[in-house]
Amino acid sequence: MKTGIRTGHVVALCGGIGGAKLALGLYRVLDPGQLTVVVNTGDDFEHLGLHVSPDLDTVLYTLGGIADPERGWGRADETWNFMAALGRFGGETWFRLGDRDLAMHVSRTEWLRSGLKLSEFASQTAHSLEISAQVLPMSDDAVRTIVETAEGDLPFQHYFVRRRCEPVVKGIRFQSASAATPSPGVLDLLLNPAVRAIVVCPSNPYLSVDPILSVPGIRDALAKNAAPVIAVSPIIGGEAVKGPTAKIMHELGVAVNTQAIAAHYRGLIDGLVIDEADAADEARAGVPVMVTRTMMRDLADRERLAGDVVAFADKLSRRAIAARAAGGGR
Amino acid sequence: MKTGIRTGHVVALCGGIGGAKLALGLYRVLDPGQLTVVVNTGDDFEHLGLHVSPDLDTVLYTLGGIADPERGWGRADETWNFMAALGRFGGETWFRLGDRDLAMHVSRTEWLRSGLKLSEFASQTAHSLEISAQVLPMSDDAVRTIVETAEGDLPFQHYFVRRRCEPVVKGIRFQSASAATPSPGVLDLLLNPAVRAIVVCPSNPYLSVDPILSVPGIRDALAKNAAPVIAVSPIIGGEAVKGPTAKIMHELGVAVNTQAIAAHYRGLIDGLVIDEADAADEARAGVPVMVTRTMMRDLADRERLAGDVVAFADKLSRRAIAARAAGGGR
Repeated sequence: MKTGIRTGHVVALCGGIGGAKLALGLYRVLDPGQLTVVVNTGDDFEHLGLHVSPDLDTVLYTLGGIADPERGWGRADETWNFMAALGRFGGETWFRLGDRDLAMHVSRTEWLRSGLKLSEFASQTAHSLEISAQVLPMSDDAVRTIVETAEGDLPFQHYFVRRRCEPVVKGIRFQSASAATPSPGVLDLLLNPAVRAIVVCPSNPYLSVDPILSVPGIRDALAKNAAPVIAVSPIIGGEAVKGPTAKIMHELGVAVNTQAIAAHYRGLIDGLVIDEADAADEARAGVPVMVTRTMMRDLADRERLAGDVVAFADKLSRRAIAARAAGGGR
Repeated sequence: MKTGIRTGHVVALCGGIGGAKLALGLYRVLDPGQLTVVVNTGDDFEHLGLHVSPDLDTVLYTLGGIADPERGWGRADETWNFMAALGRFGGETWFRLGDRDLAMHVSRTEWLRSGLKLSEFASQTAHSLEISAQVLPMSDDAVRTIVETAEGDLPFQHYFVRRRCEPVVKGIRFQSASAATPSPGVLDLLLNPAVRAIVVCPSNPYLSVDPILSVPGIRDALAKNAAPVIAVSPIIGGEAVKGPTAKIMHELGVAVNTQAIAAHYRGLIDGLVIDEADAADEARAGVPVMVTRTMMRDLADRERLAGDVVAFADKLSRRAIAARAAGGGR
């Protein structure tokens, strides 16, 4: 799959399951060491006294080859005896923590309590799992996604898992974002002129990507970097592949289509990758569009889409160079 | 088994595995609600950021009927996937925490961090496990058993588990004991004239019973209560049944026999239960002795020994009454 892929560093911004699929594709098609994944931590929460980082873990497990292939989250060959025992003691079981998965949460909680940083934990874990990509939380500071619903404000996991996205969403905010800083290395990387492409994975734009963009400095860095910023639309044929994206867009009064995604990322992205089912939307996106198959059912899909995204970025990059050569701006 | 057992409350002081066996025997031969077990927490430690209470858990699992029958500690039908995953991340695996067992540690840690007490956690857990006995830690304060060895001071679990009792013991001390108070209800119970018997289980006297006695007020209460205090010797035929008792006695320059146990508890106990193998020591014990089989291989052994201990206490109690009636002291 590496044929035709130029050397150069790619930065992917991603949330959990859907985003991690493309991150894995990029990880496999790029040369070792050429990928950094900046992961949403707005979903992080303290649960049972443990610091849980659902998206970070999904990315680490996925790139480490130990993610559960069916669920998408958690670990393969997982057992649930902790959960069963906890239930017997009357503990909270609405957020499922597998026995193997617990090693991550217990280690991380101990790590953070000792004063070390989440980004350092992610790096060490990536090393343990022999992942050659860099995996970074968007911030070492606690930015928390709060879903404003008809039933009141809900911390993300309470909305997403405990309430199964049932409450009607009225708004979304990122608590403490204004006081946060990107985790070490993120801004330097995003501002590095040697970056080949910045990829916004097909994660939920509102719940998974916006928290990353809410960290001061990240949005500006994306705008400043000459490398093309490419988003992959999470919408296929007017529906979200998985999760509550479509329901939330509807509740927020946004049409469920690629135009809405393009509009949401306007000013931020240089290109949008959409599915063949939405090919008719190409002309209305307002940015250069690549039409391809964006559904990622198997590993070959992930690699093919990753290759398409990078090729699209390279094409836009050359176009940008040509435009600059002709005296125009980016 | 309840034939011949009078109604009346029994208090057992105990450590882990050996002591819990007799506690279970008492639990089964006494009427429901007639047993309180005061458990050593000198072995408690913070491990992987979790508050682990090995002896308390052994007692709760044993009385709750979910202890592993082979190991004596931990839970039956246990799995070890957390441990395996932790090892892969380079975590500490010398202290084994099973997947089901983890529910206890995670719940307790969260409980304590929220400002609640260990004794409240023990009571709630006993309730969850439908245990009709009262199970209380010796104290809600952190008293920590430190083993002074030829290689320096070691916290108990580091000596016992990590170093497998290999370092030569020079002394034992109970850190912060002087500032500790017995957990709520312990002193009231120990001073209650309605108590029928106080049983010192066949736990290690130096490592498991002494920490309980080190909590200010407990030793005095035992002396003040008119109920007979009966210890069961952990020595059988000049050897310890299990664990490092004999090795420690040897290293502390104490002979490994029932006389040494009697001497250790002198002034505290009204009677000593010893094994048939040590019947020759009866005359040299310096306190009334009951000779019986103290090896507890199966449940019938536990119940029979418990019945013997209570019967012995009742006999001494009547003797004490008679002595008082004749104008003598206790």
